[in-house]
Amino acid sequence: MLKRDYAGQNCSIARALELIGERWSLLIVRDCLRGYGRFDQFQASLGIASNVLSNRLERLVEVGIIERVRYQQRPDRYEYRLTEMGLELRVALIALMHWGDRHLAPAGAPVLVEHAGCGGEVTTRLACSECGAVLEPADIQTRPGPGHRAPAHA
Amino acid sequence: MLKRDYAGQNCSIARALELIGERWSLLIVRDCLRGYGRFDQFQASLGIASNVLSNRLERLVEVGIIERVRYQQRPDRYEYRLTEMGLELRVALIALMHWGDRHLAPAGAPVLVEHAGCGGEVTTRLACSECGAVLEPADIQTRPGPGHRAPAHA
Repeated sequence: MLKRDYAGQNCSIARALELIGERWSLLIVRDCLRGYGRFDQFQASLGIASNVLSNRLERLVEVGIIERVRYQQRPDRYEYRLTEMGLELRVALIALMHWGDRHLAPAGAPVLVEHAGCGGEVTTRLACSECGAVLEPADIQTRPGPGHRAPAHA
Repeated sequence: MLKRDYAGQNCSIARALELIGERWSLLIVRDCLRGYGRFDQFQASLGIASNVLSNRLERLVEVGIIERVRYQQRPDRYEYRLTEMGLELRVALIALMHWGDRHLAPAGAPVLVEHAGCGGEVTTRLACSECGAVLEPADIQTRPGPGHRAPAHA
């Protein structure tokens, strides 16, 4: 079985991928953002075997991205909902979608995200939290943060 | 072997994952954004077997995310560089990193991204391209785009 961890990587991207990098996981998060929550909704949307779907849902619950909530009693019925942590994946997910729209959607974007207020197109951008400027690649730089440590493989 | 395509998904996220969803691929893109380009640099950073690394680099070249460029003659030496398409993954990648920083980095962010101009922290946000407003989840909605078609599994 393929390992899911990235040993030796002191990197928040690697850690994120340890949680959502497995095949189908991010599409389940996408479906939750679409408002799907029931097992049969995920199955209809994804068309995958129920054991694979169960496994992925269980893992996403385990790491705190979704939670299993009872929405009906007698008989008990459950659905899955994004936690706050899971909801916060939306910026990354929309950014990835926009990238796919630009480069991999010759017939145009399958889905448009718009500002409910004015109908304008939603963009994902880098901005400065201090001066508010919208940033281009040349405007950004990186430096070691508080959690930095020398890489294991260097 | 695990399939890499998501048949039946008319979705730019799924298409993006078909290109960069394989184990290690996104960390190679991350390393390119860090300025790494040579095979031995990737290997030192990732600590993976050279056949896996070769396979991933080849695939990323094939789909147009990186290109192989000769940077020295006699002897010829090559390095890998992000194409414009590859560079455009940075917003999604930084958004994913920030998500990991918030939720998966108890010792603090390993890497900080800052505005080269004023030193302010770089944020990834959703904004409206029309009115310029910074958007919260409640402010956004989706609708079918020009590339929409009825889902295969619904």
